[in-house]
Amino acid sequence: MTLPWYEQAAKSRDLAVEQQALARQDQLTKPRGALGQLERLAVRLASLQGCAQPRLERVALTVFAGDHGVTEEGVSAFPQVVTAEMIRNFSRGGAAISVVARRLGAHFEVVNVGTVSELEALPGVLDCRVMAGTANFCRQPAMRETQLQQALQVGFDAAERAREQGAQLFIAGEMGIGNTTPATALACVFLGLDAARLAGPGAGLDAAGVSRKAEAIQRALALHQPCAAAPLATLAALGGLEIAAMAGAYIRCAQLGLPLLVDGFITTAAALCAVRINPGVREWLLFGHQSAEPGHRLLLESLAAEPVLRLDMRLGEGSGAALAVPLLQHACALHNEMATFAEAAVSAGG
Amino acid sequence: MTLPWYEQAAKSRDLAVEQQALARQDQLTKPRGALGQLERLAVRLASLQGCAQPRLERVALTVFAGDHGVTEEGVSAFPQVVTAEMIRNFSRGGAAISVVARRLGAHFEVVNVGTVSELEALPGVLDCRVMAGTANFCRQPAMRETQLQQALQVGFDAAERAREQGAQLFIAGEMGIGNTTPATALACVFLGLDAARLAGPGAGLDAAGVSRKAEAIQRALALHQPCAAAPLATLAALGGLEIAAMAGAYIRCAQLGLPLLVDGFITTAAALCAVRINPGVREWLLFGHQSAEPGHRLLLESLAAEPVLRLDMRLGEGSGAALAVPLLQHACALHNEMATFAEAAVSAGG
Repeated sequence: MTLPWYEQAAKSRDLAVEQQALARQDQLTKPRGALGQLERLAVRLASLQGCAQPRLERVALTVFAGDHGVTEEGVSAFPQVVTAEMIRNFSRGGAAISVVARRLGAHFEVVNVGTVSELEALPGVLDCRVMAGTANFCRQPAMRETQLQQALQVGFDAAERAREQGAQLFIAGEMGIGNTTPATALACVFLGLDAARLAGPGAGLDAAGVSRKAEAIQRALALHQPCAAAPLATLAALGGLEIAAMAGAYIRCAQLGLPLLVDGFITTAAALCAVRINPGVREWLLFGHQSAEPGHRLLLESLAAEPVLRLDMRLGEGSGAALAVPLLQHACALHNEMATFAEAAVSAGG
Repeated sequence: MTLPWYEQAAKSRDLAVEQQALARQDQLTKPRGALGQLERLAVRLASLQGCAQPRLERVALTVFAGDHGVTEEGVSAFPQVVTAEMIRNFSRGGAAISVVARRLGAHFEVVNVGTVSELEALPGVLDCRVMAGTANFCRQPAMRETQLQQALQVGFDAAERAREQGAQLFIAGEMGIGNTTPATALACVFLGLDAARLAGPGAGLDAAGVSRKAEAIQRALALHQPCAAAPLATLAALGGLEIAAMAGAYIRCAQLGLPLLVDGFITTAAALCAVRINPGVREWLLFGHQSAEPGHRLLLESLAAEPVLRLDMRLGEGSGAALAVPLLQHACALHNEMATFAEAAVSAGG
């Protein structure tokens, strides 16, 4: 019996290259370890790319969008129509991630995995709608098994496109009004924590809204009785279409050997789903930032993540990851271009 | 009686532009405050540049170098000759800051404020030697009053050059074997803390070395009895030539209205000296990173600083500040280029 695609092995990083890269770092003209996290990033990228001189010139950035039935429960500060409005804003170049992607010269696309309404054709937006938004998971599973499979496949396809374009790094972003609620629900299951511990303000809920959100999640957990050991069923019961698509993209990138840079709370929840479905994915995850959403720290800790940035951001769209790209690029340039003690005739420390 | 140049008033930021910039941030298509620290940076740069659309295309980066008599006390993991060796490495483009400055397209220069020996002529290195390294401050003042004045003037001149080149941001870096020791001594005076509290490993001292360093500083403090209310005398007794030059550069930039991005432990000690000499300088200081040197956090707190990066770096050379530049540039781009809710026809949050 063959495994389904998403359970097939991820690629392994190159441990011989990792040793070479570590040795090179210690020969560069700086006190040993003085570049801190940038040294660790360069070494990790070298081992993932299987190349002693890691490169990050071509970055693929895909924003996955979807709507959420659970918005009926009053869990978002913004009306649901904003998902579609923001897709148009991405397409016209006015959103935060549009600005950052442009400055980075990244390949930027938007994938509609399931807005409530069909959208007109828009430049740079792919219509991959699986359904008209998820169902309200306080009443029924967010999606059926077949719909989950389709959403995972949407992510698979995005990963394949990135590889075909020669991407050296893949960033998933997301847009979906209400999507901190499914992300929090998934985190509750996989971290074994109460909703009250993990629920936060998302895009700007007040304290009453945060309570309402936590309470809605607790009701859904009681209804579905999800099990952390059954990640696919959990994702179908509580997930979002864009979250499932991101999990699929992460898994496929790890299989293709394409390093991943994870963004904020929702993408980290998707990454956690991907790791629970396929543990080999973990090795391919780098983490762009720690967001202001309180539960994000716990999610990052559960993945033993070392985020690059802590800028008090809480925007999503892939923005925090995209903003970390120049630091990864500098980490590579420092690794590749600095002189060694021998080359520069600099005396080493004692 | 005219004030000496370094006590003349710094420019003030433009509070009307600050209000405009704050208002614009709240109209951009994102939840209010969702860009966190990047919003504060864009608003601050707008008010400093007096321009509602802040720009950071031209960055001036000057590394100030000098030697330190206190290295006689065994306070550094590297031999003193490394200061000159690293100046040659900067000139040839092999040092970390050379690599980062190149990627940024920054205007990069090295100013020799006082190596022990005279150096041969080197491309990109200005010979501004005030003296052959400072005296060992465990035995006598590090420099005389006239030498301090000359070192401050070296910084003044660097600030003037940056302004003439049209720089929109000034970064001071430093190189000087042993220079965490004078930086720590200055911090002890201005923060009113013991050397044991502030001394750290610098470029890689072991625990015995850190004790030796703290003990040397305590001896110097007992010898000179410096007074925080007399910053110039304190700087002459305990400073470094490159530290004094950086203080001079910071003061002159603040007078010229050129925003400053401070690097790590030593540059922050220089910035603290500048603020104690001329409190109006504070307004012009942005902070690139929090270094791994343990005392840096306390120095930053004393200046109510909000560093951009925390990457566990401890290299100096201006590297931590230079690495923060892309984030400041993205902060400006987001501020200037994102669509407003009205422009994008996106519904605002409730």
